[in-house]
Amino acid sequence: MELKKQGNLIVICGPSAVGKGTICKEFLKTNKDIKLSVSATTRKPREGEINGVNYYFLDKEDFLNKIENDEFLEYATVYDNCYGTPKGPVLENLKQGYDVLLEIDIQGAMQVKEKYPKGVFVFILPPTLKELENRIRNRGTESKEDMEKRLGCAQDEILQVEKYDYFIVNDDLVEATKKLNAIILAEQNSVKKYKKNIIDKFSKEEF
Amino acid sequence: MELKKQGNLIVICGPSAVGKGTICKEFLKTNKDIKLSVSATTRKPREGEINGVNYYFLDKEDFLNKIENDEFLEYATVYDNCYGTPKGPVLENLKQGYDVLLEIDIQGAMQVKEKYPKGVFVFILPPTLKELENRIRNRGTESKEDMEKRLGCAQDEILQVEKYDYFIVNDDLVEATKKLNAIILAEQNSVKKYKKNIIDKFSKEEF
Repeated sequence: MELKKQGNLIVICGPSAVGKGTICKEFLKTNKDIKLSVSATTRKPREGEINGVNYYFLDKEDFLNKIENDEFLEYATVYDNCYGTPKGPVLENLKQGYDVLLEIDIQGAMQVKEKYPKGVFVFILPPTLKELENRIRNRGTESKEDMEKRLGCAQDEILQVEKYDYFIVNDDLVEATKKLNAIILAEQNSVKKYKKNIIDKFSKEEF
Repeated sequence: MELKKQGNLIVICGPSAVGKGTICKEFLKTNKDIKLSVSATTRKPREGEINGVNYYFLDKEDFLNKIENDEFLEYATVYDNCYGTPKGPVLENLKQGYDVLLEIDIQGAMQVKEKYPKGVFVFILPPTLKELENRIRNRGTESKEDMEKRLGCAQDEILQVEKYDYFIVNDDLVEATKKLNAIILAEQNSVKKYKKNIIDKFSKEEF
């Protein structure tokens, strides 16, 4: 049976250094039919970066126009450059029935939730804050003060977990990826989302 | 990280002959840590049936006492025999953190939903009513009238799908079992269910 379905927007979020990028990369290796959302930015392309693949490269005027016209699911300014998630390609993919994966920080995720509450919001947790500290340290040296600030921030973010639908503890990449797969497959079989299609199909069928 | 968790009660339901028993059997082959709920009955044990494994065999007085004491998640009388799902073993397994699988007809499922709304209710759908008709026919001959009655009944049941959390179209046993696995794993990672545990753990952690 083919139930005609709209895709799901899967938003992957979590504190910095928790490993959400690694999980998404691993997940996409074996899920070729899931679309990764491509961000827009006003920063200049680096060598090898392709427009529409790594980013949509826009000039500042274009970007500001798109903000004006409500064409972003979320956006932010980081050190004079703008970054955002263009709404159009995401909605088009969902309409065509593709699931779309969006990896994003916590401020961005909350903006997306406002504009697209039907999304599936997944929060990646570290096994412990101590382990998150190790991961941050491995990314580069940080002063004791910076580290405490970052961990305090991560703790605050984790305590907001109730704004999300699912959590995944990233203690093992294979297990974490398996859980992400399960969440996406379960959501494809959610009655709440697809009951109209089921009822339409079976109410019309004759026997 | 070990989040201390309560197990989930997974209720598998669907029209007669849709194949829910086959899915459960296939599922349990590779999920040894999931407990299958054992029914109680007043009918006599058949050869080879073991008390506590195939059924809890009770005499009628015991059964009626247990109804009186609200010790069933659901019960029904079929041709003079009583059948029911004893609450005690299910709740004990859930408390110990085990997921419990309960395969049941639609009347039973709705009784369980009233007594244990936290359960995860999964409805198994046939690919089409035509295909359900074939499956019923393969189980034995039925008169044209009986068949129409059964299919009409199945259609009514399917149109009540919104009372369930998930649906699984049983067009392929491997795929259907995979979906059941995904639903159970996703539910183990539901924020709604486990947010208290997450917040408890991370609010106490020092860094």
